[in-house]
Amino acid sequence: MPELRKDPVIGRWVIIATERGKRPTDFASEPTGPTSSFCPFCEGNEDKTPPEIMAYRNAGTGPNKPGWRLRVVPNKFPALQIEGSLDKRGEGIYDRMHGIGAHEVIIETPEHHLTLTELPSEHIQNVLWAYRDRMADLKRDTRFTYGMIFKNVGKTAGASLEHTHSQIIVLPTVPRTVADEMRGSKTFFDYRGRCIFCDMIRQELDTGTRIVLDGEEFVAFEPYAARFPFETWILPKRHASHYENLQRLVVEELAYCLKTTLLKIEKALNMPAYNYIVHTTPFENPEIEHYHWHIEIIPRLTKVAGFEWGTGFYINPVPPESAAEFLRNTQVH
Amino acid sequence: MPELRKDPVIGRWVIIATERGKRPTDFASEPTGPTSSFCPFCEGNEDKTPPEIMAYRNAGTGPNKPGWRLRVVPNKFPALQIEGSLDKRGEGIYDRMHGIGAHEVIIETPEHHLTLTELPSEHIQNVLWAYRDRMADLKRDTRFTYGMIFKNVGKTAGASLEHTHSQIIVLPTVPRTVADEMRGSKTFFDYRGRCIFCDMIRQELDTGTRIVLDGEEFVAFEPYAARFPFETWILPKRHASHYENLQRLVVEELAYCLKTTLLKIEKALNMPAYNYIVHTTPFENPEIEHYHWHIEIIPRLTKVAGFEWGTGFYINPVPPESAAEFLRNTQVH
Repeated sequence: MPELRKDPVIGRWVIIATERGKRPTDFASEPTGPTSSFCPFCEGNEDKTPPEIMAYRNAGTGPNKPGWRLRVVPNKFPALQIEGSLDKRGEGIYDRMHGIGAHEVIIETPEHHLTLTELPSEHIQNVLWAYRDRMADLKRDTRFTYGMIFKNVGKTAGASLEHTHSQIIVLPTVPRTVADEMRGSKTFFDYRGRCIFCDMIRQELDTGTRIVLDGEEFVAFEPYAARFPFETWILPKRHASHYENLQRLVVEELAYCLKTTLLKIEKALNMPAYNYIVHTTPFENPEIEHYHWHIEIIPRLTKVAGFEWGTGFYINPVPPESAAEFLRNTQVH
Repeated sequence: MPELRKDPVIGRWVIIATERGKRPTDFASEPTGPTSSFCPFCEGNEDKTPPEIMAYRNAGTGPNKPGWRLRVVPNKFPALQIEGSLDKRGEGIYDRMHGIGAHEVIIETPEHHLTLTELPSEHIQNVLWAYRDRMADLKRDTRFTYGMIFKNVGKTAGASLEHTHSQIIVLPTVPRTVADEMRGSKTFFDYRGRCIFCDMIRQELDTGTRIVLDGEEFVAFEPYAARFPFETWILPKRHASHYENLQRLVVEELAYCLKTTLLKIEKALNMPAYNYIVHTTPFENPEIEHYHWHIEIIPRLTKVAGFEWGTGFYINPVPPESAAEFLRNTQVH
């Protein structure tokens, strides 16, 4: 049973994967050479993953059989376990609970050799809609308080399989960064009566220097205090606190905006590894005025990797204004 | 002039290196092949660094000449600039100030081919004492509020030069992780009247399962909620809030403890890249009861790199109890 443990000083929860615990010798040398050619995410290999939770399928095809366009399965090596009680308890000054949660994989396409950005925009809509479907379903489980949607692309970004996929981790606690964002945006709201993200969007559109893409419903920009070179955020222009309340009408534009932004990053930086993470409001909150869901895209540029990793202190060698200008001028259509 | 910019939502300050700003094309491809054989940190190349700030030298040798055992110089490509005023100002909803600060390099030995752990323990005492000397000097500058001492070993950990060295960055703001630690430990102290780190040391010594090394004055253990496999902390057993108040009497043991712990990590994990960071109290505080300086060592095991990078959310595949047991059983003397 994995454990969730709380840092007693700063209150950060960490998943300690006690069962699939690696041995120290697993870290002693890094395997090199080509990865295995077998892919459990390819069409025809449906029995090589745990049984599917959901799929968008062609008419007349059955579960765990070919004929799907998108498939959601439990992670075969989950960081958290879906069955059981939280069993919260203390250990002296420390706090822990069972590592209960969901860890699912969204296999974005049956085609092995396509990247997310090579999929047609209509197909990316399916991916975004699948995120929504899974979040809406998982939030019904009262043990869970937060759903984190993320995508790792490339080995440097932590992707262990090449076949394009995203992940959802659903947790019984709120990750520290999100808790900090909730608290910070609440403080701003209490003081000024406005959503800080809405203010940010207004100022970015006025200034213009950090804008990457300006659409009807969504805007992509480099944040003012970007931690990483080419860090890019996508936000809905209309205030919305929960990703899972996404409306059908705007998915088309979100898919276009995400695809175009990623294509620009891929072209400008020569196909870097990257992560994106959807930041959204914890399940327990109803629609709220002070927090605004958004997607944070972080290219993983190895030259920058430094001591930031463990300190929360960042040095960004590329001003976001330069990055935004470069991305604006990168033509991808 | 580099800039310090504040994230308006969570209050994290980021250094934006506007002047030495890299061009996007600098990131497009990673240079490979051997690094240049010239080393500006080697004895005889003193004129290839900015003039030295301090050195421990053999009698009869002059500044910026051979004959030193340890040398401190300004970073040639500093993240912050030492001259100037902070010029704090707003930009709409955002906050910024000039990137004023110190960025120094401690060249730990004139010998190119030695690692820190290959230095005799007496020499490591010099390194630890140089940290103290520089902190004590820099805290006299009232523009500065925090001094961060750190060491990157190996390319994966962000080291750009092989020759063993540490760095000090002195800032006009307190890094977010430190601010969180100060706040968390203060809350604990206000509630219980004890230092949370002192409590942690007592509990770790009682439990024993996470102890790596137990000395007279210092203890090394794996923290209960370790973010990373083999993350190891070294703490003084007697309460002390400021690294720069380190006493001569205990440096010998700290050098032994640091060397032994690092040797164990290097042997157990086959010479991994690693970072260590000294966490200490901001300059403005006098000796305080609630915070306890310590060193956090983080081996950089590439198999673990994941989306933790940008989220503050960690999955650790090695329970700290297993890591501690393995390190305890790793013989290095």
